[in-house]
Order: sequence, then structure tokens, then C-alpha cells
Amino acid sequence: MLSNASLEELLVEIRPLIGEGNVASYIPALANVNPNQLGIAVCMANGDVFTAGDADTRFSIQSISKVFALTAALTRFSEDELWTRVGREPSGQAYNSLIQLEFEKGKPRNPFINAGALVVADMLQSRLSAPKQRMLELLRKLANSTDIYIDHNVADSEFEHMARNAAIAYLMKSHGNFTNSVETVLQSYFSYCAINMNCVELATAFSFLARKGIPCHRNKSLVSERCTRRLNALLATCGLYDESGDFAFRVGMPAKSGVGGGIAAVIPGELTVCVWSPELNDSGNSLAGTALLELFSERFGHSIF
Amino acid sequence: MLSNASLEELLVEIRPLIGEGNVASYIPALANVNPNQLGIAVCMANGDVFTAGDADTRFSIQSISKVFALTAALTRFSEDELWTRVGREPSGQAYNSLIQLEFEKGKPRNPFINAGALVVADMLQSRLSAPKQRMLELLRKLANSTDIYIDHNVADSEFEHMARNAAIAYLMKSHGNFTNSVETVLQSYFSYCAINMNCVELATAFSFLARKGIPCHRNKSLVSERCTRRLNALLATCGLYDESGDFAFRVGMPAKSGVGGGIAAVIPGELTVCVWSPELNDSGNSLAGTALLELFSERFGHSIF
Amino acid sequence: MLSNASLEELLVEIRPLIGEGNVASYIPALANVNPNQLGIAVCMANGDVFTAGDADTRFSIQSISKVFALTAALTRFSEDELWTRVGREPSGQAYNSLIQLEFEKGKPRNPFINAGALVVADMLQSRLSAPKQRMLELLRKLANSTDIYIDHNVADSEFEHMARNAAIAYLMKSHGNFTNSVETVLQSYFSYCAINMNCVELATAFSFLARKGIPCHRNKSLVSERCTRRLNALLATCGLYDESGDFAFRVGMPAKSGVGGGIAAVIPGELTVCVWSPELNDSGNSLAGTALLELFSERFGHSIF
Amino acid sequence: MLSNASLEELLVEIRPLIGEGNVASYIPALANVNPNQLGIAVCMANGDVFTAGDADTRFSIQSISKVFALTAALTRFSEDELWTRVGREPSGQAYNSLIQLEFEKGKPRNPFINAGALVVADMLQSRLSAPKQRMLELLRKLANSTDIYIDHNVADSEFEHMARNAAIAYLMKSHGNFTNSVETVLQSYFSYCAINMNCVELATAFSFLARKGIPCHRNKSLVSERCTRRLNALLATCGLYDESGDFAFRVGMPAKSGVGGGIAAVIPGELTVCVWSPELNDSGNSLAGTALLELFSERFGHSIF
Repeated sequence: MLSNASLEELLVEIRPLIGEGNVASYIPALANVNPNQLGIAVCMANGDVFTAGDADTRFSIQSISKVFALTAALTRFSEDELWTRVGREPSGQAYNSLIQLEFEKGKPRNPFINAGALVVADMLQSRLSAPKQRMLELLRKLANSTDIYIDHNVADSEFEHMARNAAIAYLMKSHGNFTNSVETVLQSYFSYCAINMNCVELATAFSFLARKGIPCHRNKSLVSERCTRRLNALLATCGLYDESGDFAFRVGMPAKSGVGGGIAAVIPGELTVCVWSPELNDSGNSLAGTALLELFSERFGHSIF
Repeated sequence: MLSNASLEELLVEIRPLIGEGNVASYIPALANVNPNQLGIAVCMANGDVFTAGDADTRFSIQSISKVFALTAALTRFSEDELWTRVGREPSGQAYNSLIQLEFEKGKPRNPFINAGALVVADMLQSRLSAPKQRMLELLRKLANSTDIYIDHNVADSEFEHMARNAAIAYLMKSHGNFTNSVETVLQSYFSYCAINMNCVELATAFSFLARKGIPCHRNKSLVSERCTRRLNALLATCGLYDESGDFAFRVGMPAKSGVGGGIAAVIPGELTVCVWSPELNDSGNSLAGTALLELFSERFGHSIF
Repeated sequence: MLSNASLEELLVEIRPLIGEGNVASYIPALANVNPNQLGIAVCMANGDVFTAGDADTRFSIQSISKVFALTAALTRFSEDELWTRVGREPSGQAYNSLIQLEFEKGKPRNPFINAGALVVADMLQSRLSAPKQRMLELLRKLANSTDIYIDHNVADSEFEHMARNAAIAYLMKSHGNFTNSVETVLQSYFSYCAINMNCVELATAFSFLARKGIPCHRNKSLVSERCTRRLNALLATCGLYDESGDFAFRVGMPAKSGVGGGIAAVIPGELTVCVWSPELNDSGNSLAGTALLELFSERFGHSIF
Repeated sequence: MLSNASLEELLVEIRPLIGEGNVASYIPALANVNPNQLGIAVCMANGDVFTAGDADTRFSIQSISKVFALTAALTRFSEDELWTRVGREPSGQAYNSLIQLEFEKGKPRNPFINAGALVVADMLQSRLSAPKQRMLELLRKLANSTDIYIDHNVADSEFEHMARNAAIAYLMKSHGNFTNSVETVLQSYFSYCAINMNCVELATAFSFLARKGIPCHRNKSLVSERCTRRLNALLATCGLYDESGDFAFRVGMPAKSGVGGGIAAVIPGELTVCVWSPELNDSGNSLAGTALLELFSERFGHSIF
């Protein structure tokens, strides 16, 4: 039976894994995070929230922002406009690879690898007057929290180390699949990634995915029921980089991870859950977080399969 | 409300798509199939069966056999033995590509691309005295039908055109990931593919995937509940070759397709469904069959997402 | 016997090929060149020059500049400094591919594909106070002509269409193999490419490669005899993009081509030759120019093989 | 001045390198060769022969046989027949890679990587009644020696470990670029590779490449002067696997290496030279042999560049 206490029991079993992974180190702002943290928050479809551990500590959401950016794009572009510029297949490659992108002439495989998220950011840049501010507003609304900000220290540091993402964006530009200035879009993209949220806020912000498109604390759909199913399908096949298959196999939930150590997951019709622990495995996903979700799924019988 | 009549209505809507695809033509035995056929069978978790169209016409199950071979292997090998030889990630490549296989030193990405299924067939060859006969017995039991046979005309024709699959098997052999004689394993593999079944039989044979591992007409588990979830996860991420992401997006069911034009799908806890129409789309999946499953999912609200 | 008249006879045989290729069209400044031009200049090891056709018309030297940039780098860096940052193997890929560059972790295959030339330009940027001016001075000295300039119209146009080269440079930067600002180096690189020279000037400027490192009209070595041999070896294996093997097979001379339609070639100890015709073949090399060099080689028995 | 004594001086300088490489170990018959051997033979264009070290010890010629097989094919097929089935570009990949072969739809890059040599062997199989015997006769004639044989121990061992080459052949067969039985052609191919010759015999057998197509001890052309130039061009760009560029850079001679440790090289118009030492570098070429040819080139001023 789900409760704060039963979640705490899961943490006790998982905590020994801390020390087996590595905190993301490509920028100092992330490398300096205390690795000894572990949290979980569950948001039931009815809005009830259960938590354990460091569920209230904010962290860098990083690639989890790709889900919100895609959702924002889906409310502002037709499906045709969007899916002619980005695919919806797993990539079978590292999240930042340019190889497949060159073979497929600048069309990214899906919106959750870096190339795809950069195309989505480019699209938002074309249609939003102040994209960073709009994204913050969306997240505050979805998370039911006014206290969500961009960590400019992180965003600036990402911008300084932009070479790989700039290479990806320019390669797409050379194929005609990138409209705005690369530097401008990268600034927006890194700002989305540098938003700080905690497990409770992320589980709450994901709740529309478990509720046919209707966020908790709202009575209005953000996206249609059909669109919600499609977002969940994309998360299931592409949400954990090149570990999506293994994650489905072990955990059985549509989910999105970030190199900040967070993973947000969905059981449609039932609940959303966000876990966080900063150390990553070799695929760039939270090592303890993945294990925690696997245990959560087994213990409480939550799986879409 | 699901009924023979309501399924027939779906067929009426889908039939106009016949003529837009192409029947598999790499061997004469498949190229000569009458393209003007369309069938569907639904097997409810309680065993009730609904059908429409050519649901009783047998066809070559082809790659759908990969699910049964993998299941057979899972009952005879430990998870460790199996998953050290084959991965569980989508490939992001054509089903018969050797490129990724070379990069990944002879370990196939998953058991539903040809390379992975050949490894599974190699494992079965090592542990079964008469693998083709065992596979037939398994399928007859699962499908509750004594009338299931190998089409030796098809198997022989596949063997004559074995070059691509032989290349894949030899590449794995050169990396130490193939134990038996390539020709012997290919004969078994092509025999599995050349089994003829109809929609009713396939939907019934898939029923254990919707019933926590317990086949219809049986009261004994074929595989554990956990193993069943894992099979469904693999189907969801890897079951439709390099169109798995798009299929999840449009249809939302774990499924496996074959170039004979069949697709068998699962809604865990609810039902299994098999559709068949011989013409394929560019990804090698039944064109009308995919559209029929999409319509079925929408009309009756069946989706795991 | 080599003479102006005998070269003119070659042009008569080759002119019918004009119309079979396509002028480079990725920037307007190149697309607008009159395709109906064909020239040749031969510079004997003793300094005698023979010409025919449009040998005095200046054109954009484009990638032929890569030879001069590499030579300049070899006079300012040790071999170790240079060859740890760029390889000396044919690429087996298109000149602007990023695929191999990603596999080989940002180290370009050779200095004559774009990636390699960008590394060389990056190195020159680090050690020269005014790299564009230095390159012009080098070329004026080697070509024995004060009338050589950068076509700023072309350089600016290249810069506007920099996406592909920017992607290559940023990918190398992400691997730590690019030191300076990508935009600054690209400006220098495009300026080198946008230098205008004619066949006589290019044949003369290449003469050091036929004279053990000593340019015509000079009595001082530009590079050592050994370095000269090594430059010729690189030209022979890597000078014509992914057509280097075929060019060696048909023509048998170390050479470098540019998308402006020029090709400069060397027979060590004997002569240098430059041909020019703006239309390119599918590999990006002058179609009539290649045929002209093949005929030149056959007619006068000049081949290193 | 070239003499037996001056060659012996080179060996003294090179011998310390023995111990730095590794003898080929993929088959026992090669792994058991005594690594402490080093030999050189030079065959001047006039037929004079100079030798030093183990120049009379026979070794497995392995891939050097690819030159003789290609030459044999060029005497029995038109250029068109041959070059539509195999290219003439460096591969930029390992000699036994399938990746490029899949991209390029079964057409090998050149006749000196395994794929290309297998196509040549397939062609010879189609047109020769007893290909192994014909190849032996050709080599005995070219080497002016009746004492040249196939080492069946080596050939059988190669056949037992045929997986990688079988994969390559079947991949080409799947693309329609392989006519005969894979096993039959592999037997011929491995027999060509398993021929034993010594440095004197190989230098002599290569002499036609330095003499415009006319072998030493013969007064009749084996191939035309033009064809000879073209063979030398292929050797220069493709003869040393994925180290061809570096070899041209360091040594400056068209050449072909084998994993038996032999390298045969040509200076057109002047001489041929064969070196042998069993230990290989990381690219699969004789480590001491490459260094010996580099020293030979420098000391006596022999380079085509």
C-alpha cells in the first residue's frame, strides 16, 4: 500500500547503491552536486502526493525539460509541422551522436535526443516572443509552484561548453532543418535544461500524462487525450536515451531522465512518480533512480506491461 | 462494444487501403499470395474470441515466430545466459543490417531483429533435440490447434535465398556469438518462420501475454508474470523493426509483425489481437494491418498509454 | 613534345566534355561562373611555362588552398605537433562528412578533407598574427605574382553558408581538437579558399613540389626535400577527396582539386601542371580538368607509376 | 650504392625493432612462426638481385596474393567487367569491415581489402577450370621458381576460421555481387593466401610492375604498360589496408603487405623489393618490414614522390 512510510522503505533498500555511479562532470555546476542524495515523490491521479527522502530538494531538471518543450510545441504547431522536422523512432545511438543525423539528412530520430530537442527549441524560438519566460510559466502552472527558476550559473556553464550541441545544430542547419540563430536557440535550450525543480514539483508537473491531458489542480486540458497517449508512447520508446529498451524491460513505465539525476515516470490513469539521485550509470541515467523505479514497480505492481 | 459485427465495420473502413502496399517479394512463395485479403481476430483475456474477414485463412507467420522462439528460450535458459548474448534495445536500423552488429562486436541489439533471432535459434539448437518439432508442438499447444504445420515450400525457398541471414550469422560467429553450424541453424530458423497459422490461432497463441503468462485453455503458466511483462516491454520497444516508435505512437500496443503480413498485439490484462493483410509498407509491416490496429485502438479505447 | 601548340591540341579533344558536369552551386558567387572555360599551364622543373586556353583567367582556388595552408603549417609547427592533431590516411568518405570524425573522436583523417584543413587553419590562427595576409604573401611569392587577392564576395558568401563547416569545427572542439573561436577560424579558412589565381600562377606556386622544396624563381628551400616527398605522398592518396584512388588510377599524378574547377598536379623532378574548367563531376572534381590531366599523362608519358 | 653488404647494414639498424610487434595469431599455423626473422631482396629492373638476412626463407604470402589474383583477373576479364564489381578507392576502414560494404550495396571499395579480393576470387572461379593450380603456375613463372607450393596446413586452418570472410562473401551474395558457392571460392581464396614464397621469389614475381608489364626472365608482357601503371596506382593508394596513406608518407612506394609479415614494393622503372619479418603492427603490416622499407627508401633515395 502506497504511503510515505512504504516509500521510505524502498529508499532504505536502494541507498546502498549510492557510490556506484558518477555525477555528471561535463560542467562544474553539475559536478559539484552532493552525490549522497535520494528522493521520490508519487502524485496519484486524484492529486494525492506521497514522498520520501530528498523529495523537496531542487535539482537541475536537464533533459526532463525536453518533455515540457515538446508539449509546448504540440500546443503551438500542428502535428504535421512538428513531425516533418523530427521523427519518433528510438535512435539506437548515444543521445548526442551526429552519425545517424548525417545519414538521415538532418532529421533527428526523436524529440528526446539532443538533436530532436534542439529542433523543438528552434520551433519554439520561432513562435514565442520570450521562450524562456513562457517555459518557466508553463512549469510553474503545471507544478503548481511559483518558486521555480532557471539556474543561470548552470545555463551559462552549459553555454560555455556548447561545442557538441552547436555541432548538432549546425549540422541540422546545413540540411535546412534549423531556422533561427544557433547561439540564440542554444541559449534558450540550455535555459530550459537549467531549470531547478524538486521531485514533488516534477511528479505534479507530469500529472497531465496520467490524467488524459488534464493537469492536477486544473480542470482544463493542456493537450488532448490522444496527444497524451502519444507523448507516453514516445516516452516509453525514446525517453531514456539508448537505455530505453532496458528501462522498459526492467521498470515498465514511460519516463524521461535527465543528467541532473532525475527521472519522471507515468502509469497512465494511475499516477506519476519522480525519483532523484545525482549519480549516473554509463548510459547517463540516474543509477539509484533507475533501481528505485524498478523496485517501486515490482513492489506496488505498477507497470504498463 | 466488441463483437464480430463491430470488427467487420472496422474492416469496411480499412479495405480501401488494400493496393497501397506491396506483398513481400524476396521469395516466390510469398510473392504469390493473393494481396486482397484482410482479417482480424480478438482473443479476450477470458478466452472469448471475436473475428472478422479472413481470420481463418492461414498465412506464413514469419517474424512473429521470433516471439515464440524467444519464449521457448526463456523457458530453457537463465536470463543471464540469454541476455549476455543478445541485448534489449531498439536498433535504430533496418532489421537485417550488419552495421550495428559490427560496431557492437557481434551482440545483436534485441531478439526481434534477424541477428537477435538467429542467436536465439542458435541457443535452441544447442538445447533441443528436434527444435522444429518442439516449436510446432509449442505453437499447437498455445494456439489450441493440432492443425499447424511448416510450409516446406516456403522454408526451402528462404534457405535458397539465405545469403543475408548467413552473412549475419557468420559475422556473429566471427565474434564468438554463434555456436552451431550456420546452415543447420538457418534451416531451423527458416522453418520457424515458415509455420502457417491464422489470425484466430495467433491471437490465441499470444494470449499468455495478456494473462500474466497463463495461456488460454491452460491452467499452468508458460512463463512467470514478471517474464510476461518483460516480453511485452520488448514487443513495445522492438517489435516492429525500425517502425516500433511510430507504431507505439499510432497504435499503443506491444506487438510483433511478420513479412507475411500478420501482426499480433497485446493489451495486458485485457486481450490479444491478430490482424493480417499481405501488403507491406516501406518498413516491412502490414500496411492495412497497422491501420486496422490503429483504428481498433481508437474505436475501442485499447492502448497501454 | 610539350609546347603551347601541343597543349592546345589536348584542349580541342577535351572541349566536347564541357556541358557534362555542373558548376558548384552552393554559393551564388561560384554558381555564376561561365562554365564554358578550359585552361592549362605547365611549369617545367627548369621554370619554362607552357599554356593553352584560359590559362590566364583567375578563378577561386578553393580547396587547392589546403596545400598552401598545410605547407605554411609545416614551416611553423613540428611534425609531431601537426600529426597528433590530423591523420594522413584517405577518408573513404565524402569530404564534408562528420561520421568518421565522430568515430575517430575529432581527429580528422587527413589535411585535405574539410575537417583536416580546419584543424590546420586553427593551428595557423594560433601562430600567425594576420593569417589571411600571410597566406596572400606566401602565394604571391610562390606564384611570382603581386596580383593575387582574396575575392571578398566569395569569402562572405561562404561565411553566410558556413553551417556544415561550423558543425565540423564544433565537433572537433567538443573533442578538444580546436583551439580558437570557430567563427574566427572559419573567416580565415574561407578567405584562403576565396583567393583567386590562374593556371599559370598555380602551376608556378606548386613548382616547389617538383623541385625538392625549392620554388621556381627562388634559390631557397620552402620546405625540405623529405617534407616535399611527404606532401606529394599526401596529395597522391588524399588530394581528390573520395576520388583519389580513381584519379591515381587514371591520371597517376599527386594533385589537389578545388570546387572552383581547378586541379594542380605534380610529377616530382619534372613538372607541375594546373588545369581549370568550372564544371564538376559527382565527386566535386573538375570533370573536363580530370579528363585533360588523364590525356596529358597518356600523351606525354607523365605518370609517377 | 646498392649491394648485398649495404642491405645487410640496413638489417643491422632495423633488427632492434624485432620484439615490438605481434605475430598474426588468428590461426595456429601463423602464430607458430619464429618472430626473430628479417629478410630483404631487391630485384633491379635489369634482373640483378641483391639480398640480405632471411631472404631465402619461405613464408605465407597471405594478402600479397591479392596482387597476383587481380593481375590474373585483368588478363581474363575486360576492365569493364572487373571495375563494375569492385571499386578502386581506399576504404578508410579496417580490411575486414562489413560496414562500408553494406552502405555501398555489396560493391567493395578496392581489390586489396578482403571483400574486393573475394570478388576477384569469385571471378577467377567462374573462368578458370582449376584456379589454385593456375595461380601456382602463374607464380612459378613470375618468380622463375618451380619450388612454390600451397601450405595446405595453413589453407585448412584459414578455412576452419572462415567466419568473417564468409560473412563478407554472403553479404556480397545478398547484393548480387557473388556468383559461385561461398565455400568453394573461400577454399580457392585461402589457398592463394597460403602459398609460400621467399623474398627473392616475391621481388622477382613483382618485377613486371617495375618493367612496364614485362616480367624478368621473360620477353613477353604479362599485362600492358598502361595496366601496369594502374596496378601500381592501386598499390599506392590501397595496398597497405588502412595504413596506405601513412605508408606512402613514410616510404613512398606502391606496395602490398600480407599478415605473414611480407611486403613487396615497386619503384617503376627501377626495381622491386620484398622485405619480410613476421611481427605485425596494429594495422596488420610487418612492423620491422615497414621500417626497413622506410630506411631503404631514405638511404638509397628510392621514392616515387
